[in-house]
Amino acid sequence: MAAPSLEFWFEFASTYSYVAAMRIGALASKANVAVQWRPFLLGPIFKAQGWDTSPFNLYPAKGRYMWRDVERQCVELGLPFRRPEPFPQSSLMASRVALVGLDEGWGEEFCRAVFRAEFAEGRNIGEGAAIADVLCTLGVTPEPVLARAQGDDTKTRLRNQTEEAQRLGLFGAPSFIADGELFWGNDRLEQALSWAQVGSSTPARMSS
Amino acid sequence: MAAPSLEFWFEFASTYSYVAAMRIGALASKANVAVQWRPFLLGPIFKAQGWDTSPFNLYPAKGRYMWRDVERQCVELGLPFRRPEPFPQSSLMASRVALVGLDEGWGEEFCRAVFRAEFAEGRNIGEGAAIADVLCTLGVTPEPVLARAQGDDTKTRLRNQTEEAQRLGLFGAPSFIADGELFWGNDRLEQALSWAQVGSSTPARMSS
Repeated sequence: MAAPSLEFWFEFASTYSYVAAMRIGALASKANVAVQWRPFLLGPIFKAQGWDTSPFNLYPAKGRYMWRDVERQCVELGLPFRRPEPFPQSSLMASRVALVGLDEGWGEEFCRAVFRAEFAEGRNIGEGAAIADVLCTLGVTPEPVLARAQGDDTKTRLRNQTEEAQRLGLFGAPSFIADGELFWGNDRLEQALSWAQVGSSTPARMSS
Repeated sequence: MAAPSLEFWFEFASTYSYVAAMRIGALASKANVAVQWRPFLLGPIFKAQGWDTSPFNLYPAKGRYMWRDVERQCVELGLPFRRPEPFPQSSLMASRVALVGLDEGWGEEFCRAVFRAEFAEGRNIGEGAAIADVLCTLGVTPEPVLARAQGDDTKTRLRNQTEEAQRLGLFGAPSFIADGELFWGNDRLEQALSWAQVGSSTPARMSS
């Protein structure tokens, strides 16, 4: 049986992806589950169902609730939280740089730092300066990374990754895939980790 | 300080309302929180945002996920589950009868029995016969109850309750209100109960 692993699909613009990104490291390590960080873009997925912005902007009651709910979750978890302006932020550059970083070994740290910049420090991650600052705090020289991030190779990889998300049935973020099962939402992180631990060979697992 | 209480807003057509309705009794009693059961209709709320059916039908990826997720939740909780046909079912009559029952002292039991009929036993709760059968199993004579449920008084009460839900910012079901705070989703039941227990007088509570 393969070592337990979990795919963590996230979108840098997503509030609940922030919460999940801050939680997943400790929980996964305690559960002995390896995590693959998989940034993707929700924009094309939303567009395919007729939305041109976040559903939290399109549906005001849902949006008002989300801001309060995230605030409560963060208080409970002791996480700093600040409502990003604008929302949603453009996550294109951050996602491309994350792909480079995940290759080069500083990706997870970069992802957490981007989420912190956006949701705790009031930065706009759509701006190159914010991304460059994050890279500097990690001791990574921005220029070559940003060049690689904007190369065709990385662009294609992010596009492919977003198409794969769509194929996998993802419709929101964060999402987790454990042993072929899809789990949606920060609330499902613990259940997804258990699923990854138990593996597909258990008879207790019901058929889908 | 008032005794802790929680408003439980639910929609009979809603899958996650079923799960919450089956869980709330034991959890609330353990937490010493009184629960007010408040049936309402999501239809008018969905219509106001341009939807003519459940978002789980409008957005297929979300719908596919929901069916699998509810199935997994029910397995974990040991709850029977069967996908209702049609979905969503008409919850108008069940909601009106529930209002009568909540007045007469058999309302909660009726609500759980309706949810079971719909989500465990394959009945269509939009049909009068299914509602009458549920009443019979509770030892309640259907005719006078159904007459009262279809009277203007009950119709107006359900309409008012649905309008109140909208005013309170509800956009989905189940929802919970504890001490003025809105919580959405079966996943938030435990948090809503804690909120009800702690009350509004605690300094640790952050401002909204």
